[in-house]
Amino acid sequence: MIRPAIPDDVPNIGRLIRALADYEKLSREVVLDEVQLRQHLFGSRPYAEVLLAEEGPAVVGFALFFHNYSTFLGRPGIYLEDLFVQPENRGQGHGKALLLALARLAVERGCGRLEWSVLDWNESAIRFYESLGAVSMKEWTIMRVTGEPLQSLARIDPAPSHPPEENP
Amino acid sequence: MIRPAIPDDVPNIGRLIRALADYEKLSREVVLDEVQLRQHLFGSRPYAEVLLAEEGPAVVGFALFFHNYSTFLGRPGIYLEDLFVQPENRGQGHGKALLLALARLAVERGCGRLEWSVLDWNESAIRFYESLGAVSMKEWTIMRVTGEPLQSLARIDPAPSHPPEENP
Repeated sequence: MIRPAIPDDVPNIGRLIRALADYEKLSREVVLDEVQLRQHLFGSRPYAEVLLAEEGPAVVGFALFFHNYSTFLGRPGIYLEDLFVQPENRGQGHGKALLLALARLAVERGCGRLEWSVLDWNESAIRFYESLGAVSMKEWTIMRVTGEPLQSLARIDPAPSHPPEENP
Repeated sequence: MIRPAIPDDVPNIGRLIRALADYEKLSREVVLDEVQLRQHLFGSRPYAEVLLAEEGPAVVGFALFFHNYSTFLGRPGIYLEDLFVQPENRGQGHGKALLLALARLAVERGCGRLEWSVLDWNESAIRFYESLGAVSMKEWTIMRVTGEPLQSLARIDPAPSHPPEENP
């Protein structure tokens, strides 16, 4: 029912990423290139892994995740980036099975945490996750630099040889 | 001034992780094993990378980071887990230099984002990060399962062959 994705699954993973974007009404903004996706998941430097949920021969859901690392625990963790089950296949436990499979993987790999993000107004989801033992890290905020601001930041010279304020 | 860490830097990285924990008054809770740290940073499956800030021959600060992945962008990103400069070496731009070096690394590696977390009451830090072009992802909350709840989750049978609710 749940299995790790292999390179031949890339078209199915691409289809599910598009379905997730459609569901979130973001499909016009999503950048999806299956050649790149294959490279990112199964190339020489994989950036993420995927578990798939199957119903008979059909792939109906996916979980995309990667490892993070906590110096506090001195151990890696698993961060779940996307969890999605096709609307027509919901209510049959696929989402929970994917989450449980990730928890098992985390324990097998010696990870100290399993984490993911949720929109803070999605109270029913938060209650469901809390019922599974998750704690909401409400006091932490993610800061993100992307697009042109990231390019600009990368162009700043960090160590001018004669900083003006030190050479009046 | 900023350089990637090598295996011989592990004792210095360990010292800085302890100094960060001291600074956060969390040193009694931090688990730090230098043999494991070396394995996690420089073993066959590295979980994180480290940049170091040097002042003369002394290592005075570090940034520990790893790659995340966005299916929305179809690209990896960089997540900065820890940024720390020894209190006695602050005010000389080491922290900003580490952040700028990470932005350059993100662009060089084709990453779409540079992200990190901040405590939401730390308004001066948030204003500083916003001045660098970062956006605060206020609407997202991290959910975390750790410790015994993670072990419990991993023990749940996800697919009992005869779920009771389907076999009254």
